[in-house]
Amino acid sequence: MPQLRLALNQIDSTVGDLAGNAEAIVHWTRHAAGQGAHLVAFPEMALTGYPVEDLALRSSFVEASRTALRGLARRLADEGFGRLPVVVGYLDRSERAEPRLGRPAGSPENAAAVLYGGEVVLRFAKHHLPNYGVFDEYRYFVQGDTLPVVRVHGVDVALAICEDLWQEGGRVPAARSARAGLLLSVNASPYERNKDDTRLELVRKRAREAGCVTAYLAMTGGQDDLVFDGDSIVVDAAGEVIARAPQFVEGSVVLDLELPAADPGARDGAAHGQRVDDGLRIDRVVLSEEPLPAYEPELLGGYAHRLDDDEEIYSALVIGLRAYVAKNGFRSVLVGLSGGIDSALVAAIACDALGADDVYGVSMPSKYSSDHSRGDAAELARRTGLHFRTVSIEPMFDAYMGALGLTGLAEENLQSRLRGTMLMALSNQEGHLVLAPGNKSELAVGYSTLYGDSVGAFGPIKDVYKSTVFRLARWRNRAAEDRGQTPPIPESSISKPPSAELRPGQVDTDSLPDYEVLDAILSLYVDQDQGRDAIVAAGFDEELVTRTLRMVDGAEYKRRQYPPGTKISAKGFGKDRRLPITNRWRETPLR
Amino acid sequence: MPQLRLALNQIDSTVGDLAGNAEAIVHWTRHAAGQGAHLVAFPEMALTGYPVEDLALRSSFVEASRTALRGLARRLADEGFGRLPVVVGYLDRSERAEPRLGRPAGSPENAAAVLYGGEVVLRFAKHHLPNYGVFDEYRYFVQGDTLPVVRVHGVDVALAICEDLWQEGGRVPAARSARAGLLLSVNASPYERNKDDTRLELVRKRAREAGCVTAYLAMTGGQDDLVFDGDSIVVDAAGEVIARAPQFVEGSVVLDLELPAADPGARDGAAHGQRVDDGLRIDRVVLSEEPLPAYEPELLGGYAHRLDDDEEIYSALVIGLRAYVAKNGFRSVLVGLSGGIDSALVAAIACDALGADDVYGVSMPSKYSSDHSRGDAAELARRTGLHFRTVSIEPMFDAYMGALGLTGLAEENLQSRLRGTMLMALSNQEGHLVLAPGNKSELAVGYSTLYGDSVGAFGPIKDVYKSTVFRLARWRNRAAEDRGQTPPIPESSISKPPSAELRPGQVDTDSLPDYEVLDAILSLYVDQDQGRDAIVAAGFDEELVTRTLRMVDGAEYKRRQYPPGTKISAKGFGKDRRLPITNRWRETPLR
Repeated sequence: MPQLRLALNQIDSTVGDLAGNAEAIVHWTRHAAGQGAHLVAFPEMALTGYPVEDLALRSSFVEASRTALRGLARRLADEGFGRLPVVVGYLDRSERAEPRLGRPAGSPENAAAVLYGGEVVLRFAKHHLPNYGVFDEYRYFVQGDTLPVVRVHGVDVALAICEDLWQEGGRVPAARSARAGLLLSVNASPYERNKDDTRLELVRKRAREAGCVTAYLAMTGGQDDLVFDGDSIVVDAAGEVIARAPQFVEGSVVLDLELPAADPGARDGAAHGQRVDDGLRIDRVVLSEEPLPAYEPELLGGYAHRLDDDEEIYSALVIGLRAYVAKNGFRSVLVGLSGGIDSALVAAIACDALGADDVYGVSMPSKYSSDHSRGDAAELARRTGLHFRTVSIEPMFDAYMGALGLTGLAEENLQSRLRGTMLMALSNQEGHLVLAPGNKSELAVGYSTLYGDSVGAFGPIKDVYKSTVFRLARWRNRAAEDRGQTPPIPESSISKPPSAELRPGQVDTDSLPDYEVLDAILSLYVDQDQGRDAIVAAGFDEELVTRTLRMVDGAEYKRRQYPPGTKISAKGFGKDRRLPITNRWRETPLR
Repeated sequence: MPQLRLALNQIDSTVGDLAGNAEAIVHWTRHAAGQGAHLVAFPEMALTGYPVEDLALRSSFVEASRTALRGLARRLADEGFGRLPVVVGYLDRSERAEPRLGRPAGSPENAAAVLYGGEVVLRFAKHHLPNYGVFDEYRYFVQGDTLPVVRVHGVDVALAICEDLWQEGGRVPAARSARAGLLLSVNASPYERNKDDTRLELVRKRAREAGCVTAYLAMTGGQDDLVFDGDSIVVDAAGEVIARAPQFVEGSVVLDLELPAADPGARDGAAHGQRVDDGLRIDRVVLSEEPLPAYEPELLGGYAHRLDDDEEIYSALVIGLRAYVAKNGFRSVLVGLSGGIDSALVAAIACDALGADDVYGVSMPSKYSSDHSRGDAAELARRTGLHFRTVSIEPMFDAYMGALGLTGLAEENLQSRLRGTMLMALSNQEGHLVLAPGNKSELAVGYSTLYGDSVGAFGPIKDVYKSTVFRLARWRNRAAEDRGQTPPIPESSISKPPSAELRPGQVDTDSLPDYEVLDAILSLYVDQDQGRDAIVAAGFDEELVTRTLRMVDGAEYKRRQYPPGTKISAKGFGKDRRLPITNRWRETPLR
């Protein structure tokens, strides 16, 4: 059987940075060529970054992407890689789609192309467009209607983009109809908890359906509120794993494959133009007909060490924060340190993402702050080595109380807002990006203060339930111990009862159920869209369920009071799973 | 020709309030019956409110909507309206669509039903789903595949929902194929500037295509960030206007129509089940075969007075604010009054929406506040009669400056944030909803302070460019004069140069181009997705365009530093037109 050395480049792109992304593609193509690869691939929209969202609707950006692609093809040839086919994802537009209401302006395509000989020799658009969860691709793209097949050294390689594998029908059965020897899918598949297992089973299933070796090339890194976890996979036609790349790491999987020779009947376009599954038209290009001279397979791609569940989540949080800070042009971050577990975990993640020297912590005690809180904040700073200072909010608090004489919740929220204003003042003065410490449990039930502890450019643990916050803190400390390092998080931050310390003796359980129970109910209501009756039927106390749902509905209502123009989108909670936009149904009264 | 008295109920619904909306439908059906109507209609999703967004994905809410619809049918019959067909929009689900990835969970439908004899006798789902601008219907709904035709007193009435008329093909040509005597479309079409003209031309064109009288029933009122402007229209088969309802007003258009008799060939389902345009299957129901005894037409529906452009925009802002406050369970609002035109216009809108007795203004001077600012704020209060107080921010400012020694932008932003904290403290203490005064020009270029003047639950003029702010202020004062009332906005708030007053002698033109030029560039970049070259080609100074685009891109970047979970959505600016989500393309550098 013909042989092929495949290089799957699992890289991180930046949305909008066409020049930088092109440079990375050239860099990794050079690396692949150095490894003797015969076919090189880059992820979905590697040239433009993913997700481009509304940029897809700006025609000048679409044209810039098309121009950058042609420039990249020439550049690769100029650098001596003209005979090496390179598959690269980018943003294109359909030249056939007529403008009409209901079709995205300019008919943009989530596209990929094969670059060869200094030219774009084949191009195609994603066929299945995801439009759920974090995806809105019906808003931005028109569908592709071909099955692209490129013949490389006598092997027919069918190409696909991400969702083409996730949904039934289309390019997977089409690859079988076209008798492809290899199915290569380029992806930008956002991280979700346990998605690696789902993804593996998916690729195995699709390989069996396609009846050929299937390579699933993933993106890694972070962009906006998405994290990409890498984990590229190659399986054989029976669904057995041949190679698997590391999670959360940029790099290249290079491996030798023995693949069936292309069907001579399909040669020179015999089946070119034929309509197959889902109405797809086969679009064949032959780059090199003759198989390579037989060679000794050397590169196996390998099977990377798998992270356990806690390490995987923690890694996603580190990668996501690092990418957000870097891609927004910041170098350092600022965290308010209360001595509690949330801000301690956020600080630990920040130190792992950026190094302690770029992490600034500030303790902002009030008259209600306990001694242990101040001590725990300082101890965290000592253990991690982050920059630390203390600024009391008492003079500001006294000034407001003197003018307004606030009571109750207004007095509690005031303290939190004074701290938010303090953080933003330091951010404006010194240039740090502010991190918000909120976790998913408290954000879901509204146990936080608008313009107070919600202040910040990025919330590293906004998609992490409080019970998972505890688990991750313990995991991080244990991981340090295993390596003979100082555990970053003070034990008493983990073991003491959580408290906002906005009035004397306050603890979270004054207002909230036990976090294990709360998180279980939230998971059913928020993540799984279950109604009250179904949650009660699952075994939870009716009064508790009613109260919790009322808090979530009230929190949604509270979130709607954000600044104008900042309506909560379904993507706001996209990294893990999302909160519903509208819990406005009066199943429970709002007030 | 057979006659029919049609009642088009142009009403306001509340999302999630099934009981309240059902009550309104009964109320208006009673009114229609009292007027002798033979066919009664309510807007798109009148029973659930529109837009339900993620509620569509919660199966318990879908079931509640279905149950409420059946209950409404029985209730109408119980009240003696069983022989009066009522068309009502609601949320349903497809019972045939199989669950699969890429299809909204539970296969929800944006549906409408005909209620008759205590039962749901016909139901159908929207065929064309809008997924652009403020719409995301591919995310929430599956498409309908029928052309519903109901025979009422010998007239075949084809039914459609909103976008079915906006997009080409589908139910409009299908209505012609089915030889309908009347095409009735129920809608919830959000207000945009000048959309009334577009809508009129659309309905006229579709009536000619359908070849029959066409009734376009619109929703009115406000929901979240959408405003519905009413303006229901009835045109004849030649596209000539028969009746037109008022803008922004709840009510009923009742009119007598002479309509062609139903085709006897289509009787009893002769053409029932036939496939017509766009693959739609005709779904016929016969309620009453015999035409009514001839009667003297009495009710013409009328042609309502049209608002001029400024009054129309101002009305939309009043309606939108009134609905938002009421539907979120508030009664009163709080506005920071700077003496400038933005907060003055916001206060005037609030007084018109709620009455001055539910509007609270607070002047929050600093050492940089001019005497005329304080005076203009007090004068506005005097003219409108709103509640007014003054609280200086100097003690709080001094406390922060003493602790942090801020300079430059950090010092400027601090003042704005102290005011935001003041407004939220008063809101928490007294229960008012805070209004944010930002206009579209300053929000687009980022000339505002996060957690400062951006604080507020609702931004009444966030979709209004500054040059329009001036126009509306002048229009409102002139309208008062025309009615012999005191103009609400002090002349000097309109005539003085705009200033943030955050440092000595500061004026907006220190940082921004003249607003007329700025707004023209913004309109091209933000509203029309034009690139830099196209804007320069339109005749603007290249350096100015580059600088403006850089400000917008930087503002987007700044908006991305909102609290976690509040990612800007395309809907954020939906009421007028939206800002792009991602101006992240490095056409101009971010920093």
